[in-house]
Amino acid sequence: MTSGAAAVQSVTVPGYHGRAVRVSGGSTIRVTDVEGSQIGDMFAISEDDRFEYLSPAQTRNFVRRLFPSIGDPFHTNRHNSILTLVADDSPGPHDMLFAPCDQKMYEEEGFVGDHRSCRGNFFEATREIGLDMPVVPDPVNLFQNTPAQPDGSLALFETLSRPGDSITFRAEMDLVFVLTACSADLGEINVNGGKSTPLRIDVTP
Amino acid sequence: MTSGAAAVQSVTVPGYHGRAVRVSGGSTIRVTDVEGSQIGDMFAISEDDRFEYLSPAQTRNFVRRLFPSIGDPFHTNRHNSILTLVADDSPGPHDMLFAPCDQKMYEEEGFVGDHRSCRGNFFEATREIGLDMPVVPDPVNLFQNTPAQPDGSLALFETLSRPGDSITFRAEMDLVFVLTACSADLGEINVNGGKSTPLRIDVTP
Repeated sequence: MTSGAAAVQSVTVPGYHGRAVRVSGGSTIRVTDVEGSQIGDMFAISEDDRFEYLSPAQTRNFVRRLFPSIGDPFHTNRHNSILTLVADDSPGPHDMLFAPCDQKMYEEEGFVGDHRSCRGNFFEATREIGLDMPVVPDPVNLFQNTPAQPDGSLALFETLSRPGDSITFRAEMDLVFVLTACSADLGEINVNGGKSTPLRIDVTP
Repeated sequence: MTSGAAAVQSVTVPGYHGRAVRVSGGSTIRVTDVEGSQIGDMFAISEDDRFEYLSPAQTRNFVRRLFPSIGDPFHTNRHNSILTLVADDSPGPHDMLFAPCDQKMYEEEGFVGDHRSCRGNFFEATREIGLDMPVVPDPVNLFQNTPAQPDGSLALFETLSRPGDSITFRAEMDLVFVLTACSADLGEINVNGGKSTPLRIDVTP
């Protein structure tokens, strides 16, 4: 390591898959949409207690908005800061309303057979680092363009992020960071642009 | 019991408190705002597995709205129907965006000392019937008038329900039904009209 340069840990999340990374408090976490038009379901779980994790609902309570602004915290289900939104180098928007996609959702859309999903990928990724989660927390859906409409409906639009667009967070505690490249590749409005493509996680201590 | 009459189980939830009731699948559950202007935080947990419970996010995924319409299901975090919205005899609206209030929220609002809260009342009520919950699920906030605005902010308005207004659900599985009379009684806009007042649960098998 050259003097002054922080060692960046880079992890690629392949399309249709997920990855979990242990991150120390104070680190910077950047998520990059490598090829564009890709949703990333993001989860953050306290390193000290698997039952404390990022909660979109608790975050909304605190910021009184559907999504935090730059400088705002994301809170856990126990009302502690777990991440701060540092920078958004993407056109956005991002979503905190939808649950992760799952096998049953694809079956309801008419798919026959096993389909990869953010729910399945969350369990795969956490098990891979030895973390046994009995529940899947609600995600922050990075780059997901599905805004609430004035009539209360939720619109589905294609993701606007371009290759190389990114969003950056600071870890406010030691945590397990989980990111899944959303597997949605069906439906009339194809939110991920027709297929699931890679995301990259860069952690700077 | 007279012939033909179903035995209704009525439970009063005092202001600033919560109650948990075991309900069989197929039962009808009516929640009444006894004195008006009172938010009820509602939770439903599978009788078979405490880690399966009503999920506002999974419900939004399915109904593609911020709140279900009459006849729509509420889903669990495992994508199963747990309640159906049967009737709404209130002016609404209802909320599925906010987390339950907690002690720390009241401290952030400047309150000194212990304040009752929906989070605390959830734990009290579930413990009372012998249910040990390591997490508090996200609630459905009955009668809560805090709609998302076009700019993404969440407005706080006083609850519109009048004395005797109610909302009715059908249980789609054996479940533990938890209701807390929201303790919020501070702040410029007083969502509960200044104090926490009783709610009633009527369960008809």
